[in-house]
Amino acid sequence: MAKGITKRSDDYSQWYIDVVLKGEMADYSPVKGCMVIRPNGYGVWENIQRNLDRMFKETGHVNAYFPMLIPESFLKKEAEHVEGFAPECAVVTHAGGKLLEEPLVIRPTSETIIWAMYKNWINSYRDLPILINQWANVCRWEMRTRLFLRTTEFLWQEGHTAHATHEEAEEETYKMVHVYKTFAEEYLAMPVIAGKKTDQEKFAGALHTYCIEAMMQDGRALQAGTSHHLGQNFAKAFDVKFQDAEKNLTYVHASSWGVSTRLIGALIMTHSDDNGLVIPPKLAPLPVVFVPIWRNDDEKATVLGRAREITADWDPLFFKIDDRDQYKPGYKFAEWEVKGIPIRIEIGPRDCQNNEVVVVRRDTSEKITMPMNGLITNLRKLLEDIQANLFNVAKHRLDTHTRDCVSYEEYVANVEEGGFYRIHWCGDRACEDRLKEETRSTIRCIPFDAPEESGVCMLCGKPSSRRVIAAQAY
Amino acid sequence: MAKGITKRSDDYSQWYIDVVLKGEMADYSPVKGCMVIRPNGYGVWENIQRNLDRMFKETGHVNAYFPMLIPESFLKKEAEHVEGFAPECAVVTHAGGKLLEEPLVIRPTSETIIWAMYKNWINSYRDLPILINQWANVCRWEMRTRLFLRTTEFLWQEGHTAHATHEEAEEETYKMVHVYKTFAEEYLAMPVIAGKKTDQEKFAGALHTYCIEAMMQDGRALQAGTSHHLGQNFAKAFDVKFQDAEKNLTYVHASSWGVSTRLIGALIMTHSDDNGLVIPPKLAPLPVVFVPIWRNDDEKATVLGRAREITADWDPLFFKIDDRDQYKPGYKFAEWEVKGIPIRIEIGPRDCQNNEVVVVRRDTSEKITMPMNGLITNLRKLLEDIQANLFNVAKHRLDTHTRDCVSYEEYVANVEEGGFYRIHWCGDRACEDRLKEETRSTIRCIPFDAPEESGVCMLCGKPSSRRVIAAQAY
Repeated sequence: MAKGITKRSDDYSQWYIDVVLKGEMADYSPVKGCMVIRPNGYGVWENIQRNLDRMFKETGHVNAYFPMLIPESFLKKEAEHVEGFAPECAVVTHAGGKLLEEPLVIRPTSETIIWAMYKNWINSYRDLPILINQWANVCRWEMRTRLFLRTTEFLWQEGHTAHATHEEAEEETYKMVHVYKTFAEEYLAMPVIAGKKTDQEKFAGALHTYCIEAMMQDGRALQAGTSHHLGQNFAKAFDVKFQDAEKNLTYVHASSWGVSTRLIGALIMTHSDDNGLVIPPKLAPLPVVFVPIWRNDDEKATVLGRAREITADWDPLFFKIDDRDQYKPGYKFAEWEVKGIPIRIEIGPRDCQNNEVVVVRRDTSEKITMPMNGLITNLRKLLEDIQANLFNVAKHRLDTHTRDCVSYEEYVANVEEGGFYRIHWCGDRACEDRLKEETRSTIRCIPFDAPEESGVCMLCGKPSSRRVIAAQAY
Repeated sequence: MAKGITKRSDDYSQWYIDVVLKGEMADYSPVKGCMVIRPNGYGVWENIQRNLDRMFKETGHVNAYFPMLIPESFLKKEAEHVEGFAPECAVVTHAGGKLLEEPLVIRPTSETIIWAMYKNWINSYRDLPILINQWANVCRWEMRTRLFLRTTEFLWQEGHTAHATHEEAEEETYKMVHVYKTFAEEYLAMPVIAGKKTDQEKFAGALHTYCIEAMMQDGRALQAGTSHHLGQNFAKAFDVKFQDAEKNLTYVHASSWGVSTRLIGALIMTHSDDNGLVIPPKLAPLPVVFVPIWRNDDEKATVLGRAREITADWDPLFFKIDDRDQYKPGYKFAEWEVKGIPIRIEIGPRDCQNNEVVVVRRDTSEKITMPMNGLITNLRKLLEDIQANLFNVAKHRLDTHTRDCVSYEEYVANVEEGGFYRIHWCGDRACEDRLKEETRSTIRCIPFDAPEESGVCMLCGKPSSRRVIAAQAY
């Protein structure tokens, strides 16, 4: 139906690219691997930021900003960290027309520069906890990039907290992955499974990593947020100790946690359809658009007049009246559909006579006639319905495409089709590696809510006490 | 009075550094010329962002995000632009472990990458205007840096607009410098002079630059925001043409405009005093702090109970109750004073008996007894008074330190003391250069509201029809 959008059933990858480009969410840039986030996409990011930021502040966090450039030697202070990140760094070697004495890397993540500062700020238990978040751009030189999902530069937030005890750092790490889960489900309308990463998949420099994993429409997994318990690793690397109430010197405990513009890719792959974008109302830069219909100047004056009358006291960021002369209504319908606006309102001369409008839901294409009187109340209710419906559809997909799997043979035969598989795994790295090599799938997480259950590892037959989630992933 | 803050009268530069560091607005970082913006400073930036962003949206702008890395060759496409910016660029030569085919510079400003994209987005007059703003970090390798005022990396917003005609681009350029003026006066409580830069001081690549100039407490000028009419320079450099309604192909007209974290430095230098920061209420991350006073646990329970009772239905971001055990009230008073919180409330056992509190204004140190009943209304009014008072004090300073000056001898004798000088200038570069060389001062702007007035150039005696503002500047 929508011009220029490949059907999901024909080519899911191309469909995604078409939706992003035609929906004007983003565009390719002349810089390899970097994208431009266009206003329709950035508007979603602004809403993500505003709502997440409020959740961070409600849980006691404050924002700060640290330098983007990090001395190369800082990265090397934590052994696992440098191994994980050094290969994908962009390096500044010259500045101000001169060769730098020490190269600077553009932050791939900010643990090292932040812990170099925390060393100056932390002396006593009175200085703890530090609960700081940063909204920033980061750079990771990726071989294969994909709009929003994996780009060389991306926008994100990174929380970096410092605590007196292991328990407090653990509480924070666990709390924040649940903030992400709540946000994903309530705002992105995207159900997720929260759990722990395997040692192999954890953050470079962490004790362990918690994550939320979502299922895209093609059944593949997408890691949507991570929260790391860093233990005392960075405190040791940067020599950050504090004096506790008993005057003992101890290394500080840490967490870090982040989500990025990748969430926008997740949102698109969760809800959009063959007609283009579908944006959940709570994150839509523009929730409602009026498309007036007229055949002559008199009718135009009438319908535009009524549309303006109805909306006279509405918040201007809540709606737009598409009064452009140069396009016909059908063109406008298609444009707003591709851009994912949750509600389109059609208003013509007859509607004006009847004191009603035709309201079209983007998610179901259902048309509803509504009285002009009290319209805003009905629209707000409808936006809530759309938000709930998007979540329910995605939840149903997740539930029906997640299944227990016992035999490796069955797994191999099915995993390419997508879906999440609850499998028993012995916990050994060898089995995890084999799974990855032979099936291009990975263990996504050990869900927090996975019940105790005796079984045998799907790969080697050794005992296992709990199922993990395995899937192919983005 | 405040520990560790140099007096303004002793050493103004050191006072500024002390206020920034002790007020925990920012800290030096291990990366040369880069600073860390601490939560108290970043909170001010968030309030600047939120309020300015609303003003941008109310004037029809939308936000987007463009890559931070720009191919070196792009910079070279506009001759004046490369001359102005290339010497201060940070250059990425390696990434992902390899030497790049073409070096990438970290954006010093984004005209070139944005106009490379506008080329793809603009075909017809229907695509115009484009009114895009970006919130971003930028990098300019500066020799001498100063916290907030001039740092190698800084945060800013940059508007980049595209128009069909010279007149529309001019209207936008003029409109935005006035948005900045309004913002500076209403939110920063900082009066400014809006006007035009001389050709020598304009943006590299612009037809002309408008600016707002503020006066710091030492009488020196600080450029606080600029808006550039770029003409067709960037459209020509990137070959961006559009078809007008008559099907003629024409180059697009452009503006760009920006303010940065420098505004925080301006705010500090405008309002703070020998006791530390003074933050205008409209931009204060925390407007009100309660310091409870107790001598024993019973009193503690009483005063904390009452403080919590009074504030039960207040916005949690509006106030804080400083219930820390480990510090005495006097210590807390000093801390919140240094941090610039607009209102401190003292509440002790006797206050509880009398159903009143003692309210202390940060700007005047005045103590006011207020009834607990209806406190929030009185506080809101007081915050407005403080905001107005800060503006009035700064306006009085600007007015009394701006004077007409006729003789160059008089100018030379006085300019080191600070202040703005309204001088006649012939318009020649030679006189401008001589002024700079001999007096370390510059022509700050040609004010929009400078009346026609015949005179002779203060330097060469040639005729002049209007006075300009000259001053030493940051």
